[in-house]
Amino acid sequence: MMDSLEKMGQQAQAAERELSQLATPVKNQVLGQMAQALRQNQAEIMLANQHDLNQATDLPMNFVDRLTLTAQRIEQMALGLEKVASLPDPIGNIEKGWQTEQGLKIEQQRVPLGVIGIIYEARPNVTADAFALTFKSGNAVILRGGKEALQTNISIVEFLQAVLKQNGLNPHAIQIVQDTSHETASEMMQLTDYIDVLIPRGSARLIKAVVDQAKVPVIETGAGNCHIYVDEFAQLDMASQIIVNAKTQRPSVCNAAEKIVIHSAVAQEYLPKIAEALKPFNVELRGDERAQAILPDITPATEADWGTEYNDYIMAIKVVDSLDEAIEHINHYNTKHSEAIVTDNYEHSEQFLNQIDAACVYVNASTRFTDGFEFGFGAEIGISTQKLHARGPMGLNQLTSTKYVIRGNGQIRH
Amino acid sequence: MMDSLEKMGQQAQAAERELSQLATPVKNQVLGQMAQALRQNQAEIMLANQHDLNQATDLPMNFVDRLTLTAQRIEQMALGLEKVASLPDPIGNIEKGWQTEQGLKIEQQRVPLGVIGIIYEARPNVTADAFALTFKSGNAVILRGGKEALQTNISIVEFLQAVLKQNGLNPHAIQIVQDTSHETASEMMQLTDYIDVLIPRGSARLIKAVVDQAKVPVIETGAGNCHIYVDEFAQLDMASQIIVNAKTQRPSVCNAAEKIVIHSAVAQEYLPKIAEALKPFNVELRGDERAQAILPDITPATEADWGTEYNDYIMAIKVVDSLDEAIEHINHYNTKHSEAIVTDNYEHSEQFLNQIDAACVYVNASTRFTDGFEFGFGAEIGISTQKLHARGPMGLNQLTSTKYVIRGNGQIRH
Repeated sequence: MMDSLEKMGQQAQAAERELSQLATPVKNQVLGQMAQALRQNQAEIMLANQHDLNQATDLPMNFVDRLTLTAQRIEQMALGLEKVASLPDPIGNIEKGWQTEQGLKIEQQRVPLGVIGIIYEARPNVTADAFALTFKSGNAVILRGGKEALQTNISIVEFLQAVLKQNGLNPHAIQIVQDTSHETASEMMQLTDYIDVLIPRGSARLIKAVVDQAKVPVIETGAGNCHIYVDEFAQLDMASQIIVNAKTQRPSVCNAAEKIVIHSAVAQEYLPKIAEALKPFNVELRGDERAQAILPDITPATEADWGTEYNDYIMAIKVVDSLDEAIEHINHYNTKHSEAIVTDNYEHSEQFLNQIDAACVYVNASTRFTDGFEFGFGAEIGISTQKLHARGPMGLNQLTSTKYVIRGNGQIRH
Repeated sequence: MMDSLEKMGQQAQAAERELSQLATPVKNQVLGQMAQALRQNQAEIMLANQHDLNQATDLPMNFVDRLTLTAQRIEQMALGLEKVASLPDPIGNIEKGWQTEQGLKIEQQRVPLGVIGIIYEARPNVTADAFALTFKSGNAVILRGGKEALQTNISIVEFLQAVLKQNGLNPHAIQIVQDTSHETASEMMQLTDYIDVLIPRGSARLIKAVVDQAKVPVIETGAGNCHIYVDEFAQLDMASQIIVNAKTQRPSVCNAAEKIVIHSAVAQEYLPKIAEALKPFNVELRGDERAQAILPDITPATEADWGTEYNDYIMAIKVVDSLDEAIEHINHYNTKHSEAIVTDNYEHSEQFLNQIDAACVYVNASTRFTDGFEFGFGAEIGISTQKLHARGPMGLNQLTSTKYVIRGNGQIRH
């Protein structure tokens, strides 16, 4: 019998009380045993995955690809669990501490957020990855994955829960919503009594739906529309290396560059060069009228282009007459994810860093570095594009809150 | 003509671009001039206030009291502006900085949240206080105060805007919603394109309404139901001083104590003492059956009592047989605001600090210290009782976000 969402919420809160007090070595040992459990039960997980794949005959190839588990992908999931076990535990850290004039000793201590809900699409690797991060940071998690991956997800969760039970721990540290109807997803988004924060992971459409519907606080992740601004004082070779990398190294991800903004003083010289550099990757170029005048073969860019995240081998070019105009254009159309300037002018670099409103702002580097691993966080649950709570790559620390612990000896307020 | 909310949002965003780049001395100078402007125009502000008071004939006395401005209260508003001018500016601070293996220099820099919406009741002092904090932290603010204070609020805002204009600054750093209908309030809560965060200030009912309706992210503040747990190892005299202070020093506020939880081993001895100590303050005591057995004159507490914030000279008593039972009771009924244990037992103090889920957890001190001024933040916009973004007293730092600034020399991702 399936548990109701409310029951799952109660169970998660009960597990959370235990999790918040769990010693770091216990958490690490559990994660290590879970990695082994996934490896040992690889065949059974792949069988469950096969059931899902048998139902997925009408779905697009890239969808089926993301749904498919191979021995290698299960090994990656296991390595992910082991990696998180090796990361420092943020819980209990003292962020700040001071003594007041009346002699109260105040400490700001890191504590778990509580119960985290993750809503995601049919990518079974998210199941183990999201659990590892929420568990290590002392949170209980309720997962709601895409219905096409349900059998795979149930199988993974059962093996993880078995390890919790073997260690005498509450298995409800991880739960998966088995009723994958839209109604249940909506209900989960209203579960303010039990879920402290929702993190949607997936397409812009999924994230927007959650933000629009949820009463539970949401952390928005992942929508990108990154720009590379080629300044009049740019090293043009460097600009080409950065643009080619930011566009083509992995075009489907949110930190890939979608737009070139270029100063008119160098557009005539540079646009043919970058077009040439992108040619081997079959990048379709679009452009405004001034870009088209220089590159007559490119597609005209429409207003819709400037706000679009292509996630594909497409790039649009905007020609501007000043850094101010570039900053205005970028701040207007970006998703506040990652933006870069290529320049050798100090003042321009500082102005860009100060005035661009985004989670990550770069000088002379590829936007592809916006990533928890590249930032040295060891892992990430997503890239937050909102300003509240967490901004940019979210590692273990970003899955926590704090509380003030105050020790006195009888102080009263006057 | 009144501006539409959407127009106000656009204006706030335009002002915010300027505010986010404003130098600290300019902000401080403006705040100082505003303090002077309030003092110089005291008569005119009080005239506007008189218009509001003339309409408020049917309202309860304490409501009218909060609405009334006196010369002294206007001076307090002016002093508040000057106080915020004297506080350190968080914007531009580097929270963390490091270099990656590839040589990228990453800095996490403090930036404003953006546009903050404040929804509050008919307390005109909030108008200047909220502006000072949002302005100093580089944010634009849209205020929506109680309709009964509208003329007073408009008058205050006009004087503040005049100072902005005199300094060549965008006056839309502060705007007040003049249409005080419920529809406009609801519309403001949906204004996700323009408002980055909403902070409701006022009664539990107001806050709940905003949390329930808003699509804009909300920071919940102010609901309190604070407990003092008198452990079997408490110094009973200290317990009395703390309880009397936490209950009676200012009973109407959210960090006042509403409940006594007491260990059965000391209940027989202690309850008559605390009843005696509270008698001079006319505190009505309520209690569970075991408390009633010891204090036969008190009112029986109902289930509803345990979850109620009285904000009045009322206190309910719960007798428990263990620290575990006390913690369970408090975690079940509290609003996650402020909780205290009185004990001389080290292990009990640590267990209480670790296991109580609240913004502030005290050993041997009054819950009344949960306050931005007492914590040394210099000012506060409220006490956050949520776990996301900010928890506990919210000063200038809690009104900011961060961004990552990354300086490279041509790095691309491999």
